[in-house]
Amino acid sequence: MILVDGEPATVIDARDRGLAYGDGVFRTLKCLAGAPLWWRDQFDTLRRDCAALALPVPDGDALRDEVGRVAAGADCVVKILVTRGSGARGYAPPAGTPSTRVVMASALPPMAQSGAPADVMARLCSLRLAAQPRLAGVKHLNRLENVLARAEWNDPACYEGLLCDASGQLVGGTQSNLFWLEGNTLCTPPLDDCGIAGVTRTRLLRRAGRLGLASRFERRLPAAILAADEVLIGNSLIGIRRLARIDDAALSDAGWRTRLDELVHEESD
Amino acid sequence: MILVDGEPATVIDARDRGLAYGDGVFRTLKCLAGAPLWWRDQFDTLRRDCAALALPVPDGDALRDEVGRVAAGADCVVKILVTRGSGARGYAPPAGTPSTRVVMASALPPMAQSGAPADVMARLCSLRLAAQPRLAGVKHLNRLENVLARAEWNDPACYEGLLCDASGQLVGGTQSNLFWLEGNTLCTPPLDDCGIAGVTRTRLLRRAGRLGLASRFERRLPAAILAADEVLIGNSLIGIRRLARIDDAALSDAGWRTRLDELVHEESD
Repeated sequence: MILVDGEPATVIDARDRGLAYGDGVFRTLKCLAGAPLWWRDQFDTLRRDCAALALPVPDGDALRDEVGRVAAGADCVVKILVTRGSGARGYAPPAGTPSTRVVMASALPPMAQSGAPADVMARLCSLRLAAQPRLAGVKHLNRLENVLARAEWNDPACYEGLLCDASGQLVGGTQSNLFWLEGNTLCTPPLDDCGIAGVTRTRLLRRAGRLGLASRFERRLPAAILAADEVLIGNSLIGIRRLARIDDAALSDAGWRTRLDELVHEESD
Repeated sequence: MILVDGEPATVIDARDRGLAYGDGVFRTLKCLAGAPLWWRDQFDTLRRDCAALALPVPDGDALRDEVGRVAAGADCVVKILVTRGSGARGYAPPAGTPSTRVVMASALPPMAQSGAPADVMARLCSLRLAAQPRLAGVKHLNRLENVLARAEWNDPACYEGLLCDASGQLVGGTQSNLFWLEGNTLCTPPLDDCGIAGVTRTRLLRRAGRLGLASRFERRLPAAILAADEVLIGNSLIGIRRLARIDDAALSDAGWRTRLDELVHEESD
């Protein structure tokens, strides 16, 4: 089911600025029995991303209600898009045009279902992410880099592709954030030039101290994380998964995965 | 009037990858009495841009026919969008999905109408364009940088904003390519890291020799073009216009504007 501005629909205006320019943001939520996980963090992040583009923020209660309507009691993925609405041709944002809000449900992918493997394989992508501080961290609708990177492999055994910036330092995965452990330090790349600052990353960094972990933002070449105690990826659909391999390199397992996955799933803040 | 895949419509599928990811390309054509200007160059450029994203290219004759249908004999702007079509959630491009083709007409903006001023004002934008060689030159649907840059000013007397790359060197305008003259040399920024290589630029560079001009790709700081003999912008809607000012700096007029505008409009190749 799809709701466009709260009404059942399968289409949007062909003049929507989301289509014309990617002028909008989105969220991907996991729902279990129709209830969205981590709603407060998801909505806070949507609000942050709307602010980055000076987009009006949808009403939180109405949006939460729409998520429930499209989820319809099922285990599913709900995607929320907020665009700057329909407008005349031209980059200048029209004054006073209401935004467009699309809320749609789809099936949980295999990796988001219970019983999916705890460990996954990744590869290093050749595409380098461009540095754009004005858009870094934001889950906006300009995602051609992700599309091009994801098109680099077909092997279904490879779950994720890791992306570097122009200097060759790791940023994250095509659809996940990246973490690694060195002793009692949880490291993750800073996202002030590129990448998406996902909700799973926010929750993990906010809570890592509960497990006695320090957090650190680190720029690293891919070769430099192969010796980490454990390398992990995370997003809202899969929680935290361990990388067993990056291309031909096998990675260590220090046993943190399950504890960190439970940590991001805790209800309390 | 709007045609979606050749049929009159006002909407597109809410799951279109053009909306989800900006996974597509576009063209903006000027039509006079319903006939598109520079059709061969426009279609060649569409084909080049589709190839850059591995998108199927629409049939040229059918597309030309659709442009004529939406233009309906009028002086107008026709925009063509080609996206990777509708697909399941996820960045992986679906195999074998047909692309989506949107062709829509709108009114000619004032600057594209006859009698519009030959000289315009520009300003320097603070937004810096990110370097992404894989997408540079392509008129794709990821245009948030243009939207953010265009939002930097409201003054209707300012027609264009000039954009620099991360190193502070000029790339072009938010909606036009940039040129300047020094003696008998026509200079324009190289577009191998960012910017859009428009049809007007292609035609101007291909034909400049006819006026005895040499062409040169130059990286320049904004201050370094203020002393040029003449500074110009160009796109398919406005042809070639002279910049009379960039912010507070008045620019020279060496009298090239009219000749270069006539040159890009010549029918012959």
